Amino acid sequence: MLVLSSPSGAGKSTIARTLLENDGGLELSVSVTTRPRRGSEIDGVHYHFLSMRDFERMRDTEALLEAAEVHGNFYGTPREPVEIAMDEGRDMLFDIDWQGAEQLKATMPADIVSIFILPPSMTELKSRLRRRAEDSDATIQTRLENARSEIEHWRDYDYVVVNDDLDRAYAAVRAIVIAERLKRDRRPGLFDFVSGLLAERTE
Amino acid sequence: MLVLSSPSGAGKSTIARTLLENDGGLELSVSVTTRPRRGSEIDGVHYHFLSMRDFERMRDTEALLEAAEVHGNFYGTPREPVEIAMDEGRDMLFDIDWQGAEQLKATMPADIVSIFILPPSMTELKSRLRRRAEDSDATIQTRLENARSEIEHWRDYDYVVVNDDLDRAYAAVRAIVIAERLKRDRRPGLFDFVSGLLAERTE
Repeated sequence: MLVLSSPSGAGKSTIARTLLENDGGLELSVSVTTRPRRGSEIDGVHYHFLSMRDFERMRDTEALLEAAEVHGNFYGTPREPVEIAMDEGRDMLFDIDWQGAEQLKATMPADIVSIFILPPSMTELKSRLRRRAEDSDATIQTRLENARSEIEHWRDYDYVVVNDDLDRAYAAVRAIVIAERLKRDRRPGLFDFVSGLLAERTE
Repeated sequence: MLVLSSPSGAGKSTIARTLLENDGGLELSVSVTTRPRRGSEIDGVHYHFLSMRDFERMRDTEALLEAAEVHGNFYGTPREPVEIAMDEGRDMLFDIDWQGAEQLKATMPADIVSIFILPPSMTELKSRLRRRAEDSDATIQTRLENARSEIEHWRDYDYVVVNDDLDRAYAAVRAIVIAERLKRDRRPGLFDFVSGLLAERTE
């Protein structure tokens, strides 16, 4: 389970998308949210957009692995797709904030790798939010304040990547994914492979 | 500190060399040895070739971080270059066997990342040793037996890379190096960077 967090505008979603395009073994956990859909967003792809009532029903029946309120809206991670992916040995990517990451670690302490993506500067973060042209000035100001609170939690993550260049930041995240899969204790098939090697005759 | 181990012929030295060529922040720890120099080897580059007497003197004055006997010859890691590199914040690459790796962990428990490189099969390992054409058949047989003992220690390593394709194996080792440097707890400068971010005004 790979958790990718960052303040909005730091490039997390672009990096996540590129990662999913290039890595067949990785599947995105699509969050549910009660916030209104933005123009470019597709229901079921970027989020499952839910009414408050449906969100509460999922949360109350423990169909969510984590749930949090951000900017007055609710977000959550559906349990079922994650459990299916885990059973089938696929890796799952979570594009969530620090609150979600904390809860996920508590619910599924198993095997989580977490990466925090930092903007190179707050000024650059502000320009990126402006270039996105999806938010009003007031919303951008709120996002920047929330970015600060989000950034304060950088210490809770295993890895930190500064996104001063998108290609470089992507390569860094990709290297982390490749390396984590090479960890000895994450490779159940290796024991049989080595036993085979040791049993092989070479006379 | 990056430890790279493998049975001889599994590609460790080629991977180490490529890594050093492409990574300016990485320096090779050149081991000392009492074994005879092979035709292609250069004193001070591949090893420091020592007499038994000089080796013993280094070992007895604690000028070696680790020392081991393999195939009847002695090997060791000089302490001084490692301490200088650590002081200057450079990473050090150790091309040593499992005995050396164990001792290094005991002497310098600090911050060691260890990678074990496995051959795809013993038959392939044997062909590689033959192609190298540096050893007699009897020596190759000894190396294969020693390879088995070496391989038995694969569990002591953080990462395991199977070298079935040299480019892929190199890319895997490179990804591990990149990822390990991105670990939050290995980046002393990050605290100041984040403090700077949080202090930055964007009004």
